[in-house]
Formats: sequence, structure tokens, C-alpha cells
Amino acid sequence: MTLIVHGAPYSTCTQRILATLVELNVEDYKIEFVDLRKGVHKSPDFLKLQPFGQIPVLQDGDITIFESRAIVRYLCEKFAGQGTPLLGKTVKDKALVSQWLEVESQNYNPAASLIVREKVFAPRMGAPSDESVVAAQTPKLEKTLDVYEAHLAKSKFLAGDFFSLADLSHLPYTNLLVNAAGKSDLISSRPHVSAWWNAISQRPAFQKVLAMAKQ
Amino acid sequence: MTLIVHGAPYSTCTQRILATLVELNVEDYKIEFVDLRKGVHKSPDFLKLQPFGQIPVLQDGDITIFESRAIVRYLCEKFAGQGTPLLGKTVKDKALVSQWLEVESQNYNPAASLIVREKVFAPRMGAPSDESVVAAQTPKLEKTLDVYEAHLAKSKFLAGDFFSLADLSHLPYTNLLVNAAGKSDLISSRPHVSAWWNAISQRPAFQKVLAMAKQ
Ligand SMILES: N[C@@H](CCC(=O)N[C@@H](CS)C(=O)NCC(=O)O)C(=O)O
Ligand SMILES: N[C@@H](CCC(=O)N[C@@H](CS)C(=O)NCC(=O)O)C(=O)O
Repeated sequence: MTLIVHGAPYSTCTQRILATLVELNVEDYKIEFVDLRKGVHKSPDFLKLQPFGQIPVLQDGDITIFESRAIVRYLCEKFAGQGTPLLGKTVKDKALVSQWLEVESQNYNPAASLIVREKVFAPRMGAPSDESVVAAQTPKLEKTLDVYEAHLAKSKFLAGDFFSLADLSHLPYTNLLVNAAGKSDLISSRPHVSAWWNAISQRPAFQKVLAMAKQ
Repeated sequence: MTLIVHGAPYSTCTQRILATLVELNVEDYKIEFVDLRKGVHKSPDFLKLQPFGQIPVLQDGDITIFESRAIVRYLCEKFAGQGTPLLGKTVKDKALVSQWLEVESQNYNPAASLIVREKVFAPRMGAPSDESVVAAQTPKLEKTLDVYEAHLAKSKFLAGDFFSLADLSHLPYTNLLVNAAGKSDLISSRPHVSAWWNAISQRPAFQKVLAMAKQ
């Protein structure tokens, strides 16, 4: 059964799904393009799939799931044993993957996504950046990155010596922070975060997702 | 091996763990009290356990995990088959539990926790409530609750006809919204949300947690 990803390859949350599919070597999927710029995500038909009017949504036969971190977890469980073991292998590894995935969701993403919204998405839509938001969120992100720096001095990836869903979940927004928001110093000023960022962003799976986003 | 919960029974995030332990009929645990009011969570020893200086933390032998939603997921997997099946039983149920747990974390909690911070925690510490935060967050929470209302008209609990981790995760902050923040109208004005709230908050496990919080 072909998986259907409702989303847009240029959207950060959709990229979380696509990077996971590529890491898991899943090929039997198609993208049902939901153009945010045309407001398709607020249409009555789309709201039946996702009542908050947001992408992405995954359809797998009679299972429909939204929320990107729930979708990637589902994919990892469905394709367990295939491709990169993104959830970890031991009970302990799995616990640490869950923990750092939550850190991404609770601590990293709120600040990173607001900065990207102001510095990247607002200008793309012809709106000014609200610099007071950037000024409020940057120190929060720095505090989180300071914890990462100390942790990554002792650990190659967030959950241990293996690339996991926790690392992957940082890719889409960090890519925009570094390459579009003018915030690359947040990463480059921290040597262990910087080495980690190079390792995770250069993975062929994410490079492939970035190429899809450009099309 | 006795589980150790580092936290405080009066704290919302710790209550997520305690409610899960009680639902799972786990009795072999102890609470290592971390008094937020004394700043114990910012001590060097505590920061070794939780580098962001927050409770709760779970220790299970050589496994140490923080982030409440990662901890509850770990507990459900460790005690699978015991007590309430909080993660669901089928692949589809599990996907929907993950989805609604993410909705709680991404949509409900950010607004609910800020309102509770201003209306409950600030006054308890002798600080004024910032009403501009309450005014900004209330409509966001209302929008989320409108989606819940439509969904709960067709579904007894969030993930289906069974009580799950997704419902449970709403308990601590909703309890304070209703019983301490003067925001009970958010729930009572929505009949299906109201019936759901009565069903989940009256569960013996959560009542037991509230009794622990009072001690
Ligand atoms: N928590 C959701 C967030 C989804 C989200 O923010 N999607 C964005 C695109 S990255 C969207 O649909 N934005 C349009 C809107 O919110 O109106 C997830 O992780 O899936
Ligand atoms: N995302 C974390 C949040 C933890 C959290 O906010 N804990 C609060 C108590 S409910 C705390 O430790 N506050 C003290 C502080 O942040 O300094 C989780 O879910 O465990």
C-alpha cells in the first residue's frame, strides 16, 4: 500500500517526514502537494484530514495521522529493521531517543521556529521581521545550545553514538537558521554543536530532502 | 529495582509521571523530593541529572530519563500488560495516542501552561499576573478546545473509546485551569469537552495524585 504524505517539500515539518522515509529506505510513498501559499491547508476537505489546518498528514491505508513527531515515530515502528534504526536498539537507547526528541520539541523548536518565522518566512511573504521576537528567542535558543554543547562534548549524537530521530528532528529548522536566517553563528560558535551539525546535515538522506525542496 | 522519581507532587510535570505510575499499578517507586521553592533544581548535583534544571527525572537502575512525556512513554513500555493500557493496543490506536499526545504537547500545553503560570504560579509567589499573556493565550487555547469539542462529539476519549496517555497528559494543567486559574468556563462552555474532563479527572488514579499533592 503506497503511503501518502500530504505536505510540501519546502515545509520544515514535512521535511521531518521525508528525511525519515529516506533514512528508512522507504520508496513506496507519494507526496500529495498541499500548497500553503494557496491556503489549501484551510480548505474544508483538508480540515477533515487535519482539523488544525496544518501539514503534514500521513495516510497509510485506513490509518491517518498528523503531527510530524507522531508520524515519524509511527514510520520507525512500521519499518523497524529497515534502514537506519532511528529509535535506537536497546531499551536504554530508546529512552534516550525519546528524551532528546522531547527536548527538541519542548526546548529547541519553540525558539528556533519563532526566529525562522521572523527572519525567513515573514520576509518571503513581504512582511517585516519582528525583531523583538528574535531578540527574546535568541537567548533561549543559546541556553539550549549551551546544554547541547556540554552534552555533545561527551556524546557523538544526542542520544548516544548513533544517529537517531532526535538528531533528525532538528534538521529542518536548523538548516533554515544556518542557511537562511543569518543565525549560523549560533552553531559555528560552539565546536561540538558545530561538528554534530556537520555530521547530521551532510547525511545523504537530508541532502536528498533539500534537493526535493528545491524542485 | 525501586524506581526513583525526582520531583514534587505539587508540580504539574511530576503529576504526569505519578498519574501514569498509579494507572499502571506500579507500587515499587519512591519520590525524591526536589523543592522548587528552595531552588534545589538549580543545584550542581541536580544539574548532573537534568542539565536544564527542571523536574521531573526518573531513575530506573542505570537508566536516567528526563522530559515528562518521554518518561511516561518509557513507563508504559516497561510495564506493558500491567494496569491501564495507556499506549493503546492496536497499531492504529498507538498511532492515534501518539498523535493526540503531540497535540497536547504542541497545541494545548503551550497556551495552558502560560495561563496557569500567570494566574496561579505568579500570585502564589507574590508576583502580579501579566494579563497581556493571559489575553494572548486564551484565544489560542479556545481554538484548540474548539477542535477537541468537535472531535469529542464523535469519540469518547482523544484517541478513541479508551483512556490513554494522550488524555492523561492533559490532567495536571487542566486541573489548575479549572480549579485555580478561574478558567473553568473554557471547559464548561463546551459540552463534550466537559464530559471528557469529568470522565478523566474523576479517575481514581488522578484523585490519588491530587491527594498526594496536598500532603
Ligand atoms: N506541530 C505540528 C506543526 C505543523 C506546522 O506548523 N505546519 C506548518 C508548516 S511547517 C503549517 O502547516 N503552517 C500553516 C498554518 O499553521 O497555518 C507538526 O509538527 O506537525
Ligand atoms: N518539558 C519539561 C518541562 C519541565 C518543567 O517545566 N518543569 C517545571 C515544573 S512543572 C520546573 O522544573 N520548573 C522550574 C524551572 O523551569 O526552573 C517536561 O515536560 O518534563
